[in-house]
Amino acid sequence: MVNQRTFDALRVFAEERKWQQFHSPSNLAKSISIEAAELLELFQWSDDADRGEVADELADVLHYCIALARVMDFDLDDILLSKLEKTRLKYPVEHTRGRIAPIE
Amino acid sequence: MVNQRTFDALRVFAEERKWQQFHSPSNLAKSISIEAAELLELFQWSDDADRGEVADELADVLHYCIALARVMDFDLDDILLSKLEKTRLKYPVEHTRGRIAPIE
Amino acid sequence: MVNQRTFDALRVFAEERKWQQFHSPSNLAKSISIEAAELLELFQWSDDADRGEVADELADVLHYCIALARVMDFDLDDILLSKLEKTRLKYPVEHTRGRIAPIE
Amino acid sequence: MVNQRTFDALRVFAEERKWQQFHSPSNLAKSISIEAAELLELFQWSDDADRGEVADELADVLHYCIALARVMDFDLDDILLSKLEKTRLKYPVEHTRGRIAPIE
Repeated sequence: MVNQRTFDALRVFAEERKWQQFHSPSNLAKSISIEAAELLELFQWSDDADRGEVADELADVLHYCIALARVMDFDLDDILLSKLEKTRLKYPVEHTRGRIAPIE
Repeated sequence: MVNQRTFDALRVFAEERKWQQFHSPSNLAKSISIEAAELLELFQWSDDADRGEVADELADVLHYCIALARVMDFDLDDILLSKLEKTRLKYPVEHTRGRIAPIE
Repeated sequence: MVNQRTFDALRVFAEERKWQQFHSPSNLAKSISIEAAELLELFQWSDDADRGEVADELADVLHYCIALARVMDFDLDDILLSKLEKTRLKYPVEHTRGRIAPIE
Repeated sequence: MVNQRTFDALRVFAEERKWQQFHSPSNLAKSISIEAAELLELFQWSDDADRGEVADELADVLHYCIALARVMDFDLDDILLSKLEKTRLKYPVEHTRGRIAPIE
């Protein structure tokens, strides 16, 4: 669960540094990919990774996801549930149980 | 704000399809990078992208971030605020205001 | 143009360090994404980047691409021209001239 | 080995479609990350992937790497060997043999 207070803390952090000016949707999309790769780097040569490092890198990905949601004025619950509904129709339970079926 | 109900809906979705077996931390880290790139693809040739498509692709990134947090037993607020504190020390307001300083 | 001598230098570099043991196709695919994101990071907040840094990061991406081609026993010219032929059929000149049409 | 003829075929392909106008360094860096993720997707849930699909996706990554080298006026052999020299100094054989040491 992500609280409003956490969202506010992230927003204030950017405001204090006057970083919102860099937070165009396009720059944030790049940033999410960049941070996602830093997370992936922890698993580059092994399936095991340090728990604390995974936490920090996942937090960076989420940080930019939340920033993108803010500049696009998205509600996170709304977009998650709306996309889940589409994915549910694409992958009905009876056809997909236990088989690999990536979300696309 | 992300509600517990949304988290539960995502978990049930994976359980119904018996997909948790594929959700190793390593596979989920790959999945986050893959979905992040699909989001980036919307901005590949232009800084503008369709709002609904951005919502859907961002939701996919978040979906796998939440799945990784679940298998690692992370609390999202905890990891976000803990990392924010480290970033705050690394980039003090007085040194960074208005200058580009990527989170690393 | 990439010379055989360059390929040999890259191979010897890995052999000297006994790093080929880590070079599974899956690990190299992760490595290519990770290095691609380091290249992207140079353009995270701006469309301009330092020429020398772009050269170094692009070299890292190519390094792992060449390593993947080696372990898969691909000829680079073959796979480039074979894929180009498929893309040519997908995007005929008369339909695509000057319009954005990403390779997929 | 990559031949000049292959490079020329890729260049002509873009010219015929008037696609060079989209090939800014920044757009090509995004494109490399996007294609790298499509390659990674083949290994999303398994360490095995279809050989022909790996060839096609690796070709797409290389295609954009070569396009970036063209617009930056890089010689591929030069940048590969120059970066290899730096990496060689960073990871001397005696310190790294058989130990994981990612290129950074």
